[in-house]
Amino acid sequence: MQRRHLIFGGAAAGLGALAAVGATLTGTAQNPASPALDIQLHGETIVPFYGVRQAGVQTPPQAHGSFIALDLNPGTVPDRVRALLKLLSDDAAKLTGGKAALADTEGEMAVRPARLTVTFGFGPGLMSVVAPAKAPAWLKPLPAFSIDRLVPEFSGGDLLLQICSDDPMTVAHAQRMLLKDSRSFATVKWVQQGFRRARGSDETGTTMRNLFGQVDGTANPGPGSQKFGAVVWGDAANPAWTEHGTSLVIRRIRMDLDKWDGLDRPGRDESIGRRMDNGAPLTGVQEHDEPDFDAVNAAGFPVIADFSHLRRARPEDESQRIYRRAYNYDVAPGAGRASESGLVFASYQADVNRQFVPIQQRLDELDLLNEWTTPVGSAVFAIPPGCQPGGFVGETLFV
Amino acid sequence: MQRRHLIFGGAAAGLGALAAVGATLTGTAQNPASPALDIQLHGETIVPFYGVRQAGVQTPPQAHGSFIALDLNPGTVPDRVRALLKLLSDDAAKLTGGKAALADTEGEMAVRPARLTVTFGFGPGLMSVVAPAKAPAWLKPLPAFSIDRLVPEFSGGDLLLQICSDDPMTVAHAQRMLLKDSRSFATVKWVQQGFRRARGSDETGTTMRNLFGQVDGTANPGPGSQKFGAVVWGDAANPAWTEHGTSLVIRRIRMDLDKWDGLDRPGRDESIGRRMDNGAPLTGVQEHDEPDFDAVNAAGFPVIADFSHLRRARPEDESQRIYRRAYNYDVAPGAGRASESGLVFASYQADVNRQFVPIQQRLDELDLLNEWTTPVGSAVFAIPPGCQPGGFVGETLFV
Ligand code: HEM
Ligand code: HEM
Repeated sequence: MQRRHLIFGGAAAGLGALAAVGATLTGTAQNPASPALDIQLHGETIVPFYGVRQAGVQTPPQAHGSFIALDLNPGTVPDRVRALLKLLSDDAAKLTGGKAALADTEGEMAVRPARLTVTFGFGPGLMSVVAPAKAPAWLKPLPAFSIDRLVPEFSGGDLLLQICSDDPMTVAHAQRMLLKDSRSFATVKWVQQGFRRARGSDETGTTMRNLFGQVDGTANPGPGSQKFGAVVWGDAANPAWTEHGTSLVIRRIRMDLDKWDGLDRPGRDESIGRRMDNGAPLTGVQEHDEPDFDAVNAAGFPVIADFSHLRRARPEDESQRIYRRAYNYDVAPGAGRASESGLVFASYQADVNRQFVPIQQRLDELDLLNEWTTPVGSAVFAIPPGCQPGGFVGETLFV
Repeated sequence: MQRRHLIFGGAAAGLGALAAVGATLTGTAQNPASPALDIQLHGETIVPFYGVRQAGVQTPPQAHGSFIALDLNPGTVPDRVRALLKLLSDDAAKLTGGKAALADTEGEMAVRPARLTVTFGFGPGLMSVVAPAKAPAWLKPLPAFSIDRLVPEFSGGDLLLQICSDDPMTVAHAQRMLLKDSRSFATVKWVQQGFRRARGSDETGTTMRNLFGQVDGTANPGPGSQKFGAVVWGDAANPAWTEHGTSLVIRRIRMDLDKWDGLDRPGRDESIGRRMDNGAPLTGVQEHDEPDFDAVNAAGFPVIADFSHLRRARPEDESQRIYRRAYNYDVAPGAGRASESGLVFASYQADVNRQFVPIQQRLDELDLLNEWTTPVGSAVFAIPPGCQPGGFVGETLFV
């Protein structure tokens, strides 16, 4: 563990540019149980904070995510919100750049951003303080669904902080810093943390699996593609200040793993309409093959069942697509339970009412997956555009 | 995200040998926010399960750890314990080798062990079922300490599963599998999950930081060193069946980050007797410099204060050393709190009474760190030796 050889190569660029530190490490362990590994360090990789759009949406999902909803103190005036957003934007710019934030008392923990992004979202409560007339029509709690078993501890919130990084220590430190600076403005309503595969464990670009073992995210528009832009960024119907922004729906969905255990492979495949092993539609071979909803089996039944999640979730109407960027959660179970797991389901779309709600309504009416899943939290946020150095996220709201 | 170039190199060895897959990936992202990174895949790296000693003790700490305590069902007979240990050993051997466990219904999630280790520990309750006369003298709850605020939800337990991997998905899946197979034998008493820096974020061998920002682990004996062997493995005073085994004390210690925020840098340095920035003793420059407890400042006071954690924790007597392998926790805070953080403090030593207890007693009497820390959970386990293929962990107990 002590002997180590560091060979630094590559160059670290500053803020506003991508920095991929090409440091390579050859660990020559004294310990027989410690493999000698060539590790390519990724801790100093930076995703720029400043830009036309906020980072953390189009950014390929990092391994760890923490979603925090704050409630503004009663009686907060718009100027205080402005001050808070300036402060937090400044913190976020520094932290994502691998630098200590202004009031950072543990600055050494900031040096490995590992693709840290901090994304801010505005809930209905924040809008009603700052500019009620400027709230997008969709910025309100979702309509009630029959499958919902929502608890207030995971629902709503005035201001969202979405903190993602490939390093859980970085997430913890950034969260700490941002909460410290929010302390005199707001209180924590909820915190939801989740994970995907570790950076470098799987190939980049592999679709994630959720804790049911399903390949989850296949039909997503590819981040950065033209389709992605149309689905996620802006909408003529939205208020002008949201240009280059989007919306975020967060649903905390409990997944009953014990009940899921009782289902065999064919049943599992059928519940989604895709194969568990590689995510291919039941009418195809490869993950990204187009599903054929007209195909029938020998008995004359559709191969992809009408009640399958794939069939129900897929919009007939292209304008209803969404972009999902979910994280798995697996937390210490309460008394008498063996596990407490699920998805921090996070969906981005230009217009919640046009895109998200119709899908959720269809799934509420019929979706075999409802047998094993239960929404327990729900929140909607407007994701404002990004900002430039000197500015702050949300500034267009105060013009 | 879809376009990717895989260049496989290196070789994957099977069980019983170290496998470091040298797969290299060049991600050519379509996304301007996605850095093109050379990532060295580490997901298929294997730490052998079979061996004279159990893995997960001497193994350089993985990024994620989950500690699970099970309580055997009332009325369990020794043969059932034996059956459970056989089943779980077999699961662990497969999973750590990157293979699906026998009853694995999500086998695809097993293919990235990422240095997965599963380590079993026996609590007093298990011993009293199987062989009360063979329990080591130290296998009982720790003596009460004045600083303790223990809750049963994080204390005790009959059987410990320690699951560590560099990939949080792997931990979740292994945990799920092992709990599934334990279901008819035992119930979950508690689950404690924690993290350190992500694999490849920092250099291998860097001492971890805890959530106070302190460099934590400096004075540890190096895994695999002669000193490590003396501290951790076996002891003539222990029962014969524990040869090549050790003991594990788990303390859940809450760290009050809000209160810690109020302390300035000099105060922080003084509380430990080491510098926050690089972990060097206040009488030295480099992290691993020997502390000089006799050095005094201009005013005649010791540079490393008598109440500092370093001064109090360091044994005068070399035979009292311990090996700490802690994980940070940072979970969703309860109502009215901004954070819920601390250490899953895990300490290995040949003899709890000789090594751990005197240190904890000294810290209980005086340790400035007690101002900001509170033990809320406590458990003691015997870590039996390892086993060979065909055998199971704990077999020496049944001879
Ligand atoms: C725990 C709950 C859920 C699980 C486990 C789950 C799982 C999956 C899986 C495995 C797929 C197929 C692969 C893919 O394209 O990603 C899928 C597709 C999809 N899901 Fe879900 N999902 C859940 C909840 C939801 C919710 C709440 C929504 C939206 C309201 C949603 C919307 C979609 C959409 C739009 C697709 C793509 C359909 C297509 O066009 O092919 N899912 N989901
Ligand atoms: C949240 C609680 C704790 C924190 C934050 C903490 C932190 C630290 C730090 C920063 C160091 C100095 C660097 C190092 O050598 O690791 C240290 C050393 C040490 N700690 Fe702790 N510690 C905690 C609890 C404990 C407990 C409960 C014990 C055992 C009962 C313990 C035993 C030790 C020992 C033996 C050393 C090494 C002393 C030496 O020989 O230099 N610590 N700890």
